[in-house]
Amino acid sequence: MSKVIFQIEGGAPVTIDCNPGDNLLEAARRANVAIDAPCSGNGSCGKCRVKLLEGELDCIISRHITQEEWEQGWRLSCNAKVTGDCTVLVPDIASAYQSRMKTADLSSPEELAIFEAAQQGLLESGISFENNFRAVVFAMSAPCEDDTMPDNERLTWALQAELGVENVHIPFPVMVKLAHTLRENDFYVCVKGELQGDTFLCMDITAADDTAIVGCAIDIGTTTVTMVLTDLTSGKLLAKGSSGNGQIRFGADVINRIIEQGRQGGKKKLQDAIVKDTLTPIIANLCKTAGISARSILRLSIGANTTMNHLLLGVDTDPVRMDPYIPSFFSWEGLLAGDLHLPANPLAPVVIAPNIGSYVGGDITAGTLASRIWDKDEMSLFIDLGTNGEIVFGSRDFLMSCACSAGPAFEGGDISCGMRATDGAIEACTIDADTMEPTLTIVGEKGQKPVGICGSGIIDIIAELFGCKIINPKGLFVREGDRVKRDAHGMGRYVIATADESETGREVSINEVDIDNFIRAKGAIFSAVDTLLQSVDMTPDCIDKVYVAGGIGSGINMQNAVRIGMFPDVELEKYQYIGNSSLTGAYAMVLSDEAIRKCSEVAANMTYLELSTYPGYMDSFVAACFIPHTDARLFPSSL
Amino acid sequence: MSKVIFQIEGGAPVTIDCNPGDNLLEAARRANVAIDAPCSGNGSCGKCRVKLLEGELDCIISRHITQEEWEQGWRLSCNAKVTGDCTVLVPDIASAYQSRMKTADLSSPEELAIFEAAQQGLLESGISFENNFRAVVFAMSAPCEDDTMPDNERLTWALQAELGVENVHIPFPVMVKLAHTLRENDFYVCVKGELQGDTFLCMDITAADDTAIVGCAIDIGTTTVTMVLTDLTSGKLLAKGSSGNGQIRFGADVINRIIEQGRQGGKKKLQDAIVKDTLTPIIANLCKTAGISARSILRLSIGANTTMNHLLLGVDTDPVRMDPYIPSFFSWEGLLAGDLHLPANPLAPVVIAPNIGSYVGGDITAGTLASRIWDKDEMSLFIDLGTNGEIVFGSRDFLMSCACSAGPAFEGGDISCGMRATDGAIEACTIDADTMEPTLTIVGEKGQKPVGICGSGIIDIIAELFGCKIINPKGLFVREGDRVKRDAHGMGRYVIATADESETGREVSINEVDIDNFIRAKGAIFSAVDTLLQSVDMTPDCIDKVYVAGGIGSGINMQNAVRIGMFPDVELEKYQYIGNSSLTGAYAMVLSDEAIRKCSEVAANMTYLELSTYPGYMDSFVAACFIPHTDARLFPSSL
Repeated sequence: MSKVIFQIEGGAPVTIDCNPGDNLLEAARRANVAIDAPCSGNGSCGKCRVKLLEGELDCIISRHITQEEWEQGWRLSCNAKVTGDCTVLVPDIASAYQSRMKTADLSSPEELAIFEAAQQGLLESGISFENNFRAVVFAMSAPCEDDTMPDNERLTWALQAELGVENVHIPFPVMVKLAHTLRENDFYVCVKGELQGDTFLCMDITAADDTAIVGCAIDIGTTTVTMVLTDLTSGKLLAKGSSGNGQIRFGADVINRIIEQGRQGGKKKLQDAIVKDTLTPIIANLCKTAGISARSILRLSIGANTTMNHLLLGVDTDPVRMDPYIPSFFSWEGLLAGDLHLPANPLAPVVIAPNIGSYVGGDITAGTLASRIWDKDEMSLFIDLGTNGEIVFGSRDFLMSCACSAGPAFEGGDISCGMRATDGAIEACTIDADTMEPTLTIVGEKGQKPVGICGSGIIDIIAELFGCKIINPKGLFVREGDRVKRDAHGMGRYVIATADESETGREVSINEVDIDNFIRAKGAIFSAVDTLLQSVDMTPDCIDKVYVAGGIGSGINMQNAVRIGMFPDVELEKYQYIGNSSLTGAYAMVLSDEAIRKCSEVAANMTYLELSTYPGYMDSFVAACFIPHTDARLFPSSL
Repeated sequence: MSKVIFQIEGGAPVTIDCNPGDNLLEAARRANVAIDAPCSGNGSCGKCRVKLLEGELDCIISRHITQEEWEQGWRLSCNAKVTGDCTVLVPDIASAYQSRMKTADLSSPEELAIFEAAQQGLLESGISFENNFRAVVFAMSAPCEDDTMPDNERLTWALQAELGVENVHIPFPVMVKLAHTLRENDFYVCVKGELQGDTFLCMDITAADDTAIVGCAIDIGTTTVTMVLTDLTSGKLLAKGSSGNGQIRFGADVINRIIEQGRQGGKKKLQDAIVKDTLTPIIANLCKTAGISARSILRLSIGANTTMNHLLLGVDTDPVRMDPYIPSFFSWEGLLAGDLHLPANPLAPVVIAPNIGSYVGGDITAGTLASRIWDKDEMSLFIDLGTNGEIVFGSRDFLMSCACSAGPAFEGGDISCGMRATDGAIEACTIDADTMEPTLTIVGEKGQKPVGICGSGIIDIIAELFGCKIINPKGLFVREGDRVKRDAHGMGRYVIATADESETGREVSINEVDIDNFIRAKGAIFSAVDTLLQSVDMTPDCIDKVYVAGGIGSGINMQNAVRIGMFPDVELEKYQYIGNSSLTGAYAMVLSDEAIRKCSEVAANMTYLELSTYPGYMDSFVAACFIPHTDARLFPSSL
């Protein structure tokens, strides 16, 4: 046995016994030490670095570690084997997570506008924003010798009188607190619950002045989780916030997480990572912001992809990635917050926007609901750019959907200097055709220096590099200059910020491998659109409207996305960025019973096209892996 | 701070920090050291003795500790205060508890007869022994490219076909195991659940060879908990067992436990004592005996008094003992095993036989159900002798009930040499009128020497002492002899077994205080019967049948019970001992949906008479505190 000490930056050291040959990343997971490992230990992302302080590790040399870093002791934990006692420094993932935990400023009209627009739109489509949750305040007489009704019958009787209902159901969590809540408040109380036909379901009993009833709408993305709290009576937004998905330590993409959940204890581990480590702190944070108790949350709604839904519920997720790729469930009825131990009223229903296939999940049905393409005569394309890309095409007459594994490139993954759209990310870029000098837009305060490149930035850079003929349609460097460098193997790269210009003292650049990765990602999106259109015998001409959703951000330059052949070449005014439509869909569902029904209807009416087995898809993909495309006629505006 | 070390007989020592002046019994409770304290530290029972091994304790002298014992270091922990570091020996309560954990021998026809008789009787009263629990075994086709139904829809479809139901409900605990159970068993499975009208509620999914579906009927007595497991399909008894109620460490009677639950954290403590420390080990034990998994238990039924029901559910029990004595609930719908964390299928309904007042609980409604007095033209009296005494009188036309605080005398409490009906208990006795020598029947193997006296033994001894004119109607000794002794204060006692004759080397005797305690207990019973009859303008002549139930045991000598004025003086053949009717009632309810409905009906039709406020009850009680009674005309057979 060897002792491995993890010296965690900003935390207490953790010691674990290891056998010689144990993988260091695995050991860290066993010891519950969080090391950022988006590729789940495949050695491809280079993020899981640790610094050897004492002792030895058996490591292979990685392209992610420079000679200088190697000499300083930096190693990739995923390719390090324990050989004896050692101490390693673990960079602080917690602070990275904390920095991703954000609470939105709801005094900003921009934050509110998107929800107001969604509500307004759905109202226009005939979806009323009504629900049956109620907070009822009333006084009862106390029992006495002449009035010997026990507490539950007394409450039933009072609620029948107050609400005109026939039946009252008082479940266990309310029954156990009934006796002392009534007496503590001299039989003057607030009862919260839901009208269900002629029955009132009591969900809580509180002091008469605690009347808050709240909905919680959640978008669980593979990378980021976003949430809003809303007043169930007025529909007012109470708080909005987000944070990274805590499952990321088990892999940046869904496949690695599915593999992980299939291991011993894996389902619980992945479920804890989302429920305990991610949703619970965000809810706590937002409840604090809104000044409410989590017990006031009477309904939750969730927009999440199929894998996220399965992992959230602790259901075996292997069917999602195994032939014939049929998930264990599409829709799920009757789930309660208590089932998941979410910090909310334990009786609060958790409404899961239904999945329609292994790779088109509830985030897409919720997003489709929000986009309202199901209510239009015109032909609409809906593209959600998340860690995967999902596409819906159709109108009020039909809906087709498919998914493509675009990979994490749009969120900065698979790119050497890629990052999420947080402080220091290059989110937009132009390049001077003559000088080849870039002009950057950087996320953060004025004066923020670049740290890396986020999705919208990569689109711009590649479009500009191609536009300036610095790279060719294959993504190879064909012009030389101060900012074009080559390594010992001749691989070209474009230096967007030199070590001096950057925030971190490290060069920010994009190389041919990055560009190749990105071309494959954009090719996946385009060929999916192309195939989906072909499957209904249509062409891009037929598209009346394109809704782009997802975490790539409102900064996305649609023209550049078309220029590189990522989106079909239709008039720019047809494009509209609609933000996180999974969240706006979930917001509609938490407030409106009709929205829930409509979302189920949308899911039931949507046809799922499995691209991996669709004839011609692979050819279409290969053809799309050029800038803009091997068939330039598809991009008339580039001609 | 002082260190107190509890040296537990047969266990590991436990150390706790105490402040000077801390009560030793309280300190033991904080340290989770179990000391038997039936009177909950009131100093009256003398059971909480510990032996001081080292250090000092500040104690007052108690009549329960002799001078010799005092010198040996014996102290009552309830009146001992910590003054400094000390070590005390704690007698092993665990072994006492273990000895009370019993598994019945179901090969014995006597054990089965009472349940068969109950079932037969209820069938005669038109109660069918049917329920809607089912175990369905079937094979499904696996999903494939041409059959893309997800697991839950696939299961729904299969069950609709198998059972002809319209709806199938698959709750969370089944949903989460659905995917891997189906695949582990190649889609050949058993589904267990309940038919509810046109809906089938899935409660479990298992391998096709695991088809057991089991009911668990429980009688929760204040002192003893008894349970049977029964096959829900065949009605066959699978196992039967009992153990002491773990709440006893917080008081032998309900009042002390109610006080305890009202303290900080008390509800959880009392609930844990019954759920975790009592029901869980019995269920585990019986499941092992029956060779089934606890998850096969699909319904539980509970016959328990009002306080036990409240404590079990963790509901504030103060309303039970506080004016106007109206419990928080009579009946409780929709309770599940998972709510209580009972080891059973978490979705298994827990059917609580309804309470009808603070001191007439579900044990009595269940017992009344089993007695079938609700189905008879004749006038029946039903007497349940537990820690309290409850009485029901009536016929198919009306039912009246009341309760009296007889105290624990019938179970050996409040009696210096009293004990429960376990090994060594004197359960029957005759005394020779001339020699005054006793002839004893003792519980246990042949050759077992006496340890103490249980309820039925006390009735016999007092009846015989009175019959032999050794005591007078007030219970005072009026004859002298070898076996009649007096202490320094002149208090008389009858020595049933000398120190030499006894098992423990301690004399077994009954003294004037014991007799006085018992006279008050039997007086409470008789006056309750008397008052109940008066309340409906009837006299003992009207009684056609007397059913005696409860833990006092089948050994009870009805003639002696009449002779001492405990039961009304009616023909002996009218008396019938029906055992633990709360358990037989619960057994009927776990098997039969109609029995559940009938029990609710019985409860709804039963009138509760609050004796404490009933005019004339106190006079009746005082008059009954003689042997047999101040009004000898009430006992013509004794004249």
